[in-house]
Amino acid sequence: MDTIAPTPLTDDLRTRFAALLPAGRALTEAEAIAPYLREQRDLYEGRSRLVLRPSSVDEVSAILKLANETRTPVVPQGGNTGLVGGQVPRSEQEIVLSLSLMNRIRDVDPIGRTMTVDAGVVLQRVQEAADEANLFFPLSLGSEGSCQIGGNLSSNAGGTGVLAYGNSRDLCLGLEAVLPGGAIFHGLRRLKKDNRGYDIRDLLIGAEGTLGVITGAVLKLFPKPAAREVAYVGLETPEHAIQLLRRAEAIAGSQLTAFELMPRIGIEFTVRHTQGARDPLASPHAWYVLLEISSARSEDDARSVLEHTLEGAFEAGEVQDAAIAQSLSDARMFWRMREEMSWAQKPEGGSIKHDVSVPVALVPEFLRRADEAVLEAIPDARIVSFGHLGDGNIHYNISQPVGADTQVFLGRWHEINRLVHAIVADLNGSFAAEHGIGQLKRIELAETKPPMEMDLMRGIKTVFDPYGIMNPGKLL
Amino acid sequence: MDTIAPTPLTDDLRTRFAALLPAGRALTEAEAIAPYLREQRDLYEGRSRLVLRPSSVDEVSAILKLANETRTPVVPQGGNTGLVGGQVPRSEQEIVLSLSLMNRIRDVDPIGRTMTVDAGVVLQRVQEAADEANLFFPLSLGSEGSCQIGGNLSSNAGGTGVLAYGNSRDLCLGLEAVLPGGAIFHGLRRLKKDNRGYDIRDLLIGAEGTLGVITGAVLKLFPKPAAREVAYVGLETPEHAIQLLRRAEAIAGSQLTAFELMPRIGIEFTVRHTQGARDPLASPHAWYVLLEISSARSEDDARSVLEHTLEGAFEAGEVQDAAIAQSLSDARMFWRMREEMSWAQKPEGGSIKHDVSVPVALVPEFLRRADEAVLEAIPDARIVSFGHLGDGNIHYNISQPVGADTQVFLGRWHEINRLVHAIVADLNGSFAAEHGIGQLKRIELAETKPPMEMDLMRGIKTVFDPYGIMNPGKLL
Repeated sequence: MDTIAPTPLTDDLRTRFAALLPAGRALTEAEAIAPYLREQRDLYEGRSRLVLRPSSVDEVSAILKLANETRTPVVPQGGNTGLVGGQVPRSEQEIVLSLSLMNRIRDVDPIGRTMTVDAGVVLQRVQEAADEANLFFPLSLGSEGSCQIGGNLSSNAGGTGVLAYGNSRDLCLGLEAVLPGGAIFHGLRRLKKDNRGYDIRDLLIGAEGTLGVITGAVLKLFPKPAAREVAYVGLETPEHAIQLLRRAEAIAGSQLTAFELMPRIGIEFTVRHTQGARDPLASPHAWYVLLEISSARSEDDARSVLEHTLEGAFEAGEVQDAAIAQSLSDARMFWRMREEMSWAQKPEGGSIKHDVSVPVALVPEFLRRADEAVLEAIPDARIVSFGHLGDGNIHYNISQPVGADTQVFLGRWHEINRLVHAIVADLNGSFAAEHGIGQLKRIELAETKPPMEMDLMRGIKTVFDPYGIMNPGKLL
Repeated sequence: MDTIAPTPLTDDLRTRFAALLPAGRALTEAEAIAPYLREQRDLYEGRSRLVLRPSSVDEVSAILKLANETRTPVVPQGGNTGLVGGQVPRSEQEIVLSLSLMNRIRDVDPIGRTMTVDAGVVLQRVQEAADEANLFFPLSLGSEGSCQIGGNLSSNAGGTGVLAYGNSRDLCLGLEAVLPGGAIFHGLRRLKKDNRGYDIRDLLIGAEGTLGVITGAVLKLFPKPAAREVAYVGLETPEHAIQLLRRAEAIAGSQLTAFELMPRIGIEFTVRHTQGARDPLASPHAWYVLLEISSARSEDDARSVLEHTLEGAFEAGEVQDAAIAQSLSDARMFWRMREEMSWAQKPEGGSIKHDVSVPVALVPEFLRRADEAVLEAIPDARIVSFGHLGDGNIHYNISQPVGADTQVFLGRWHEINRLVHAIVADLNGSFAAEHGIGQLKRIELAETKPPMEMDLMRGIKTVFDPYGIMNPGKLL
């Protein structure tokens, strides 16, 4: 679905939209609008002449009612941290609907272990509010200090907690959303079991704002682990990492709460460009794993599971060396090595990114074949493939050759994407694991999804949004 | 959506359907068809003149193609264990599509921890195949010896494992399904993260066969617990049970794998009517909890968590007495007390059933209010309210007064449903927690769901099934 032919966003229409909100909540000046038009990767430059900042579901409803009547395209925006351009408006006809002022935590239920929030609450605040209730909200992303829970749900965000706790979808019990026309979907249910008809909730989750605007959610909370113990492990090959994963799962069960893979070059980049970062191991290794064991009971308990896992892995020759964090600051440093890896690529020049997943057992094969294909195309490319091995989700990022022309290198983005994604497809994987489709992968989605599935998606889109006002040109 | 006006199922059309399958796979004789028309609660008597038993997705596709062309209604049927009449054909125009011969386990992936199965595999066989691979499939229901995984997914079945592992929906990574017209949805993905567009999978799950026929699934497997320890606890009130639940969750975290509530009268019925059953505790208690702790490590580990939980609960006055299973046969017996409770109601006469959920913290309030309302309507009714307290899901069953006329009592089914469901609605609960809508709750769904949601559901139905051939008169 490409864009609709909207009525022009005349000054008069802007005024009508602005009048739906208290004074000061409609931004019309270019300077005020500018931050809503830029995104962190600088892949997309947005265009819009109106940003609306409602603070209640009724205000959102009034906006979508008028938008539907006037066929005005609406781009919902949370923390503006998306990596695929889904939150970026594309023309001066489009209005930005910012959820930032809908930022109340509505309720925490410590017995049912749920939290009910506005869509605009920043993820980190959700984590903190859970912590204050002596509970735990496990969604954890690099951008957690600014991304918003509504955006996390709209894109079904992943992150490092997925292994043990699931994606955003799995962490949501109920939703409130506004549909084009202004009707409110009252689905803020706090129920673990509810089989009353089709699963509208999961359709809105991951729809990237193309079916409606998520305005609130009931989130699942978990018992807070009493302790989390982290190890930083050096090993020879991704196959060894898979063996270690299997061992850790067999020993720790659901206590295995993170299993991240990193390559040597990523460690080097991170040490080089991140203040205070250092490699915890004495000698270099080809690959590294960050392994976290949680315990509901005690530090001793988590530690003993971790040590038991590593002892077995040493005996079996799966790992070459390992360090266990001896303090909270050790643990933070180990995690920083992983979390800064994407940023540490920036000073090394251009980076062509991928966000792919394959069945876990096939990650080593994927890496081998993708490396071969990429190095044939760009012999001196520096491949920084890291990520959530426990989920089969690899951020297969390629830093430019030393001294290469950045723009020429980045000009090969789609060519390299196609090489890598063909291997992913061959392994029954996904070229959009946790970042979504947005603008970046929209054409590729339409080209690769079976026509029947595209038809179903278009049909569903029409049911929710007959005039196509919701986030046009994204996803579909 | 009520039924379509189908073309009559003439003998000629029956022959055309039968010709799509190898000889012997189309049942047309009344005697052969009879078992497909009855269901275990005897609430519905089915009618149909044709049962088709395909053994491959291509055969299913051919059937749905012809059905769509001829506007012939199709009722998919798995193990025929549904409790709401969803699997029962309602007229001689309708054909039954039995999945029973699609019963291959296609693949077990021990590293990715997935199993790919045909829809017609019996749940217990899935459990056993997981066990043989030293893994664990946690879906567990009373009917597991005959229900089929396709039916479990179509109804998003729950059961006793939901607390730790989630509903059927949460246990499914990928689906294969056939849509009206015969198009095959190839969604057998083994990926933990895949954000390529709208969530068609979760729409088909729980749709009760009204959008298409599930023919295969990729299931999530889990590390097999090394040990499971079970306690049978006597306590005074449901409030105490909630306190115990909170304590167990805080201590055991994800190691708490079952938490079932039972009332005294249910124990009495079970002891009275189940061979070999006995109350493990010396004195009677008003309420009972069955509590299971699993460990990935050892029996000692599970035992120590369980003991630690119970010690604290005794000290806090939450529990009155407790028995810990000392052997596998003890554990089986404890579980039997819970599992036989529904059957043990049968010899006590008619039973008006409910399958409701409310936020966990509100279960005590629900029980108090529902008891009051029911006993006002039927003073000597014997209320047997038991179930998955950890999920807020109570099977609020009401056995007839001693000596009452069963038919007169059962004639008040809907009246009593309405009383109980009004309280459930007031507590923001669900009147269809884990058994689905089917025929039994279809009218009530349409009456209670907001019209906007009904419209969305009807719109989605039309996208998938424009002629309404899929399981008409069920759910919608």
